Formats: sequence, C-alpha cells, structure tokens
Amino acid sequence: MRTLASFSTSLLSLTKGFIAVLLLATAAHAQSDPMPSWNDTAAKAAIRAFVQRVTTEGGPDFVAEPERIAVFDNDGTLWVEQPMYTQLAFALDRVKELANAHPEWRETQPFKAALEGDLKTLATAGDKGLLELVMASHAGMSTAEFEAIVTKWIESARAPRFDRPYTELVYQPMLELLAYLRANGFKTFIVSGGGVEFMRPWSEKVYGVPPEQVVGSSIKTRFEMQNGHPILFRTPEIDFIDDKDGKPVGINAHIGRRPIAAFGNSDGDLEMLQWTTLAGGPSLGLIVHHTDAEREYAYDKDSPFGRLDKALDAAAINQWTVVDMKKDWKTIFPQK
Amino acid sequence: MRTLASFSTSLLSLTKGFIAVLLLATAAHAQSDPMPSWNDTAAKAAIRAFVQRVTTEGGPDFVAEPERIAVFDNDGTLWVEQPMYTQLAFALDRVKELANAHPEWRETQPFKAALEGDLKTLATAGDKGLLELVMASHAGMSTAEFEAIVTKWIESARAPRFDRPYTELVYQPMLELLAYLRANGFKTFIVSGGGVEFMRPWSEKVYGVPPEQVVGSSIKTRFEMQNGHPILFRTPEIDFIDDKDGKPVGINAHIGRRPIAAFGNSDGDLEMLQWTTLAGGPSLGLIVHHTDAEREYAYDKDSPFGRLDKALDAAAINQWTVVDMKKDWKTIFPQK
Repeated sequence: MRTLASFSTSLLSLTKGFIAVLLLATAAHAQSDPMPSWNDTAAKAAIRAFVQRVTTEGGPDFVAEPERIAVFDNDGTLWVEQPMYTQLAFALDRVKELANAHPEWRETQPFKAALEGDLKTLATAGDKGLLELVMASHAGMSTAEFEAIVTKWIESARAPRFDRPYTELVYQPMLELLAYLRANGFKTFIVSGGGVEFMRPWSEKVYGVPPEQVVGSSIKTRFEMQNGHPILFRTPEIDFIDDKDGKPVGINAHIGRRPIAAFGNSDGDLEMLQWTTLAGGPSLGLIVHHTDAEREYAYDKDSPFGRLDKALDAAAINQWTVVDMKKDWKTIFPQK
Repeated sequence: MRTLASFSTSLLSLTKGFIAVLLLATAAHAQSDPMPSWNDTAAKAAIRAFVQRVTTEGGPDFVAEPERIAVFDNDGTLWVEQPMYTQLAFALDRVKELANAHPEWRETQPFKAALEGDLKTLATAGDKGLLELVMASHAGMSTAEFEAIVTKWIESARAPRFDRPYTELVYQPMLELLAYLRANGFKTFIVSGGGVEFMRPWSEKVYGVPPEQVVGSSIKTRFEMQNGHPILFRTPEIDFIDDKDGKPVGINAHIGRRPIAAFGNSDGDLEMLQWTTLAGGPSLGLIVHHTDAEREYAYDKDSPFGRLDKALDAAAINQWTVVDMKKDWKTIFPQK
C-alpha cells in the first residue's frame, strides 16, 4: 500500500511537472505567436506564408514597405454586423431623438417603422429607405457636431444580445491580424461601405487605424465661415458610396496605390478583392465566413446584411483564403 | 621693407586662419540648421518657433504626434506655376499628340489655340476651356495607362526658361521645410487644385510625400473587369475640384483631421488657411509671396495663374507668415 501510495505521489508530481512544462511551452508559444486567437489551421498558415513571402528581402515576391497596403472592410470583417449594421442602430436612435421636432415622421415610412422599432417593415424599405434615414439623421450639422454626436453614442450604446458596447464587438483575431501586418511594415486601411465620419472618431482607438486611413461612404459638406469661425456643414446629399464597384474607386481616390492584401466578408467586397488580387504580383485575398451561430452569427447568401454569395464562389476560383469562423478562430471577441 | 613684408605675410596668414574658422563655423551651422536655404529672417524664425511650441512636451501648445498634420498647396508653393501651370503644359503636349485622331480640333477652340501654342487665346478660354482640354487629354484610358503617360512626360519634358525638368523646379527651401516638419513628427500632405493622378506618380520621389498623402482634383473612374483583368477607367466627368472652398472639403474627406499647419501661395489657398488656423489651438499659416523676378517670378494680384489678392489681405489680419521669396530664400531651386 505504501509503495502504491508513494508511486501515486511520484506520478502526481511528475504529472504536475509535465503540466508546468506544458504551460511554460504554451506561454512561450503564445508570446512568439502574433496571432494567438487563430487556430493552427490553413487560414492562419496562408496569412503567415504570405507575410513571409512579401517581407523576405531578395526573395522573388518581396514588396517594398511603402507598397505594403492592406485594406479591410469593416462591417462583418472587423466587427459585428448582425442583427443590423451598427450604423443603422445609430440612425434609429438618432431618429427617435429627433422625432419631437418631426411630428410628420409618425405617419411617414420609413420613419414610422424606425420609431416603432419595426425591423420587418424597415427591411422592406430597401436602400432608398435606409438612405432617407441616414440623410435625416446624419446631416444638418457641422462635421465637428456630428463627431461629438457619434462619440457620445458609441460610448454609451450597447448591443442587446451581448450587452457590450459595439466597439467591444470587434473580432479579436482580426485585431491581431491588423497588428501583425503593421509589425511587418504594412499600412492598414479601412475601406467600408459605412459612413466615413461614423468610423473615424473611434477607428484609431479601437483598430489602431488613424482617420486618414479610413475610406468610406460620405455625404457632401460645405465650407462656411460662421462669425469668423470656419466650419464644414453636412448637407443631405450623397457624395460617394464606397461599396461594391465603388470600393476600388474609393481605394484609388484615397490611397492611389493598389493594395496587396484585402480582407472582406460579403459581396460588397468582391470588386475590392478582384482589384487587389487579379492584377498580377503577390497578393492575399481573404473572406471571413460567418459560421458560428453560437459565439456570433451564422449567415451568408440569404442575409439582408453582409450577404455573401458571389464573392464566396469567386473565392474558390481565385484561391482567396476563406476563414471559417467556427473552426479557425479560438476566440471571437476581446475579453471583457 | 622686410618688416612690412613680414607683417603682410603675418596678416595674410591671420586672415587665412580667420577665414578658415569662419568656414568651419558656417559648415557647423549648416549642419545643425535644418533649413539652410532660408535666410535668418522673420519667416524662418516663425516656422522654427511654431515647431518648437507644438513639440515641447508638457508645454501649453504641445500637440500629440498623430495630430501634427501639415498641408501644402503644390503649384506656386512647392514648384513653379509660371508662365503656366505645369499640368497645362502637359495637357497641351497631350492635345498635340492626340490631334491626328481629332481633325476637328484644328477648327475648334480651345483646341485650335492649344495646337497653335496661342497662349493669349487660351487665357481667354477661362476655366471652362481649360476643363475641356483636361477632359480631352486626361480621360479615356485606365488609371494605369494614365500613370504611365504622366511618368513618361514628366521624365522628358523641360521647362523652357530654365531648361530643366519640371521636377527640378521645386523650391529647395520648401523641400527643407517638408523634411524638417517630418523630422519633428509631422505627417505632410499635398492639397492641390491640380489633378491628383498627375502628382502621385512622382510626389514620393520629389517631395517625400507618398501617393496616399496627396489630395487633389479628380475626374471620375469606373471599375471594369477586362478579360479577367481589373481596371479603373478614367471617364470625362469632373469628380471633385480641390480648390478654394473645396480645399477644406478635400482635407476633411481625405484626412479627417484638421491640420495644424498650412502652406499656400494664392487665393485658392485662402479657405485652407482659414480652416487650419481659425479654429483655435496652436497653428501656423504661411503664404509664399513670389517677389523674385530675377531668380523665379514676381506676381500676385494680377496673375492669371496663382493670383494672390484676398489671401494676402487675410494674412495681415490673421497673422499668417508671408514669405518674401527674394528676401527670405537664399536659393530657389535645388542645385543642378
């Protein structure tokens, strides 16, 4: 009995020792692994191999640092876009806030649906309806005033399902990817269908992407001197829609170089991925496929927000990397 | 006699020694002076004092590095704009090159004047006429093709008066200023009325300003897949005019932060200077006044290109620094 007990004790201490070694090894691995939230699957390997290739001086695929431009879609690629775009949640809150000054909205669509929280009717309003909401809620003030409104909202609003601020519903693996690319001499840009002035107030803090590296949709502004004070007034006119075939146009207008890496998640990113990867030269195209209903959402070709259909077919043809969120990501969001 | 000769020799060697010391001191000064092509006048002192103030940590006017945005006009501020804008010289050359395919131009203004080199008639064509020339010569090809055309032209064309490439008719003092600001944590942008895609092919090499930090006027582009190859096609439609009250609009659209320093030379820069300097907070506004007919050109309120009238009055009111080229600049162009 004594021998057995002693053997057990030895085994226990051996096991403890083994676990300690294992933990140490894991910690060391985590430290040296710039993307610890990614499982060791093909997606991660493809990213690392690409970065290796374009940063190997003297190698056949070496790309000089100034040319290392990486573009990221925002909604559904860097943060959650379900059950609706965050900017739409913002617009609905704004419409409610402004409703007292607009009694006619109670009887006019899509404002009526917005005020009643009737998402079904809103969904039938289409792009035109959403545009009306955006114009009513995003224009009619100076750029400085709008920035203050966005900042206040983004700091206080919470996503119902997760009960967390929207800026915490960003994907931890993508934050690591952004940082990993920058550590390897890439300049990271956001190229989003969302409003550029809705993202800029928080993009640097949340993503490490400064305002001048955010490309997005915009409404027109008008310069005015008000009592000797210069302002830009936001007018209710579309300036540019940075989506679909607008994305390469926006990239060219703002960046003026062709990216070598593009990250998206929907058909809205198809042309950006084509522009980035089909011109010859080393490139990486990547699509985030939402497959994890439990930890986030699962959707693709039938989703009203972030519909992924054609771009998924194109991924297979063009050898773009497709991230299977459920399998490829260890964690989804940053820890609370 | 001998004594006198000896005295002379001694004096000579003393003088030589003094000159040697003087030369050494000058060399040391040049080495420590980041703007050696500027005379030690008020303009240089104002620039250095401003940089000192915004970079002094803990000081009342300290500005964090990401907010140190400096914007530069191009024509007349960074390079020569007389006897006509360089881009107009490019457009005229292009029109001549394309003339065979357009026999109707021989009888249609402003093309007839362009083909005949009749600058007087061209000047009367106004903005509308110049726009027609630009559309005819800058559209109808892919962005990649246009870049190749610009690159070829800028490498071979020479400015008649100086018989030098246009990219050598940049102002040496301004090159030093750009570098000085960057060395102090500033991000330098070009904000020009000129075409953005006319500047981007050479801005990095000549000014150290990468394409993504060039803001300018633009025509529309359209994304197309041509035999599986993605292109952006340049269409003959104005997208944006980055001049006058368009400059703050362009700055906001591209940069998304308010600059703290702005450099211009004409009424086209007035609103950019207002936007930069009149919002409160530390700022520097500077106007290059062309006063040196001998080494460059002398012009202001009566010039068809780079007219400086209202902005000069505003400079006095708003305490913007006015550079008197003749007095403030030791040299104008880089040495051959």
